[in-house]
Amino acid sequence: MNKVLFIILDGLGDRPIKEFGGKTPLEAATKPNLDTLASEGVTGIMYPVDIGIRPGSDIAHLSIFGYDISKHYFGRGPFEAVGYGLELKEGDVALRGNFATVDDNFNVIDRRAGRIENTEKLAKLLNGMQIDKIKIYVKLGVGHRAAVVLRGQGLDGKISDVDPHQVNIKIFKSKPLVNCKRGEYTASIVNKFVKKSYQILSKQPLNKKRVEQGLYPANILLVRGAGKVIILPSFKEKYNLKAAAIAGAGLYKGIGKLMGMDALPVSRTTGKPDTNVDNKIKGALSAFKNYDFIYLHIKGADVLAEDGNFLGKKEFIEKVDRSLLPLLKKKNLLIVITTDHTTSCYLKNHTADPVPILIKGDNIYSDEVKSFDERSCAAGFLGHIKGKDVMPIIIDYLGLSKLIGG
Amino acid sequence: MNKVLFIILDGLGDRPIKEFGGKTPLEAATKPNLDTLASEGVTGIMYPVDIGIRPGSDIAHLSIFGYDISKHYFGRGPFEAVGYGLELKEGDVALRGNFATVDDNFNVIDRRAGRIENTEKLAKLLNGMQIDKIKIYVKLGVGHRAAVVLRGQGLDGKISDVDPHQVNIKIFKSKPLVNCKRGEYTASIVNKFVKKSYQILSKQPLNKKRVEQGLYPANILLVRGAGKVIILPSFKEKYNLKAAAIAGAGLYKGIGKLMGMDALPVSRTTGKPDTNVDNKIKGALSAFKNYDFIYLHIKGADVLAEDGNFLGKKEFIEKVDRSLLPLLKKKNLLIVITTDHTTSCYLKNHTADPVPILIKGDNIYSDEVKSFDERSCAAGFLGHIKGKDVMPIIIDYLGLSKLIGG
Repeated sequence: MNKVLFIILDGLGDRPIKEFGGKTPLEAATKPNLDTLASEGVTGIMYPVDIGIRPGSDIAHLSIFGYDISKHYFGRGPFEAVGYGLELKEGDVALRGNFATVDDNFNVIDRRAGRIENTEKLAKLLNGMQIDKIKIYVKLGVGHRAAVVLRGQGLDGKISDVDPHQVNIKIFKSKPLVNCKRGEYTASIVNKFVKKSYQILSKQPLNKKRVEQGLYPANILLVRGAGKVIILPSFKEKYNLKAAAIAGAGLYKGIGKLMGMDALPVSRTTGKPDTNVDNKIKGALSAFKNYDFIYLHIKGADVLAEDGNFLGKKEFIEKVDRSLLPLLKKKNLLIVITTDHTTSCYLKNHTADPVPILIKGDNIYSDEVKSFDERSCAAGFLGHIKGKDVMPIIIDYLGLSKLIGG
Repeated sequence: MNKVLFIILDGLGDRPIKEFGGKTPLEAATKPNLDTLASEGVTGIMYPVDIGIRPGSDIAHLSIFGYDISKHYFGRGPFEAVGYGLELKEGDVALRGNFATVDDNFNVIDRRAGRIENTEKLAKLLNGMQIDKIKIYVKLGVGHRAAVVLRGQGLDGKISDVDPHQVNIKIFKSKPLVNCKRGEYTASIVNKFVKKSYQILSKQPLNKKRVEQGLYPANILLVRGAGKVIILPSFKEKYNLKAAAIAGAGLYKGIGKLMGMDALPVSRTTGKPDTNVDNKIKGALSAFKNYDFIYLHIKGADVLAEDGNFLGKKEFIEKVDRSLLPLLKKKNLLIVITTDHTTSCYLKNHTADPVPILIKGDNIYSDEVKSFDERSCAAGFLGHIKGKDVMPIIIDYLGLSKLIGG
């Protein structure tokens, strides 16, 4: 059976911008290897979730891997928490958090405490406390990011954010999103935890020093994206493929782990534009001795688009393209390249536009499309598909689909 | 109103094969008439059931004719049985069977008894017996094939096959597929029937003679594909079209009959590549004096693809194409040409790939597609549709669709 290398170039899709010749970054990029793969493979355009749905990365990934988001999505917190290395149990509630700066009245001064680094000590100070009967675990992500897990009886994930997502206003009180006692209870724990984080953190010498240096102190952990943990049916169970994830950023490791994939470490991957893509590709190719399916996530294009950096995104695509050279001559390998959503450089945000997809393998279709970009792939043989269609197509290309009827 | 000629070229779709110029048999074939019809008509590409679904012929036909397979599919047995000429009643359980060869310990030696012909006498010997309170009918199909119908109270169709689908192992015991008494009862009847078939057949002089001649004796009837008979809503009821089926092979006659179509006899049709396609086309055209809709099934391409015979499939397509000449100048006729699934010559099996479809009529659309093949039709005006979409399009082209809303 062929192996599958499934590459998601996060936020790769874009909208054309007049100032750049009416092209998208992908259309503007010089990318001979992606174009060769498109020429030799079959292409199409994909709505990651559905037409008109503007997806977050988590939702988009789940859909593309064949999980029904109406059943299997339960907030972003759990995905981040797993990605940061926390072990979750069914019934836990997990949240994402930022080390941030507030004043004495809890008005937000900076949502990222000046993009503080090295907050491991702060995360440890908050880890392991108990509020009422709920145990609370905190684990550092990258930079100012952390995950928070609540464990105990009677929790609910449907609660609102404490993080107000803007500065110069007071932090929000978490509230139940549906009228229920469990939600009220969970929100009260979260509110107490955030207040406690302020009491602990604001006293820290590290923060006092930052104030003296004119830096923002990391004096609170602002949380958002709560979700109750439900164990997903595993990728192995669904597709009978032994799968691993290679990703730099926590969320994507978390998505892989929650699908039961092994998260493989690869050196010098950062989840940012400076990541070492060559190492990721090498890591994937060497992992095939142990796995049938490698999910390879590359974040950079999304980060640059969210900064509105058209040329940076174009150059990052060119960097990724160069790293794909070792894939061109591979046999017995089904290569899938797509993205989880469009991130518009112009809007600095996700949009609902469809995104290009290519699938290249031995003895499957190819089509007349010679360039891997949004508009070229719209003429491909696969047509306009949805995220949920991708895995069934792959399973059939692998020869693993069941005959229905006789 | 226009008449409809709906031609299903079974297993017509294929995957491109490198050794044959990266073409599919349909792309490689010289087929001026199909290409003319595609040029004059509207084209598209169709997933017979859905994206990623690898359908059997029965399921695919039902979907294309607008039947919801989740409600209306109940195993292949009933379709074969009806096709062989057995009259079924609601509540019957029908199975397909092969006259086969086993040794004294019921190990399978040959699943088709050396592809024995002229088994009519053997089928008659098994026909009409009673086991417990269940009456059993057996009718010969083509060659080694037969259908078995169980009639009586308390039967269930969800039982497993006796035919192990391989040689050198013992025949299977039929078992209920869901835990229920009716299933247990039905499986027990089937197991008794198969044992009885051995007792009767192994004693036959015809078989003793075959053994003497070094041929495999047809000493058992191995059954599979059980299904409980549910009467389908008729094609007439669904679409208000008086319809007939022209098909050589039993399954397709059965599909037509179960939809309430008349099965029209046409001379020298065989359900194989040697069938007389000219006669089928002539038969269809002359039947329009009595019918609104003719379903015309041509099996050959599928048989050749299952044998891995690329050139044979290409030549059969060319043979069919020549027979289509009389259709080119027809007026007041909506011509639909498609297939029920891809049968890959390379894999010798069905795949889930989408298949081409053309619809040609007066005063409907045409498009820029000039060739009737998989990849050309993917650029057609109809786009990428599903089997269930076909009949609603035809009904609208006939001017019979209802206005929804006001």
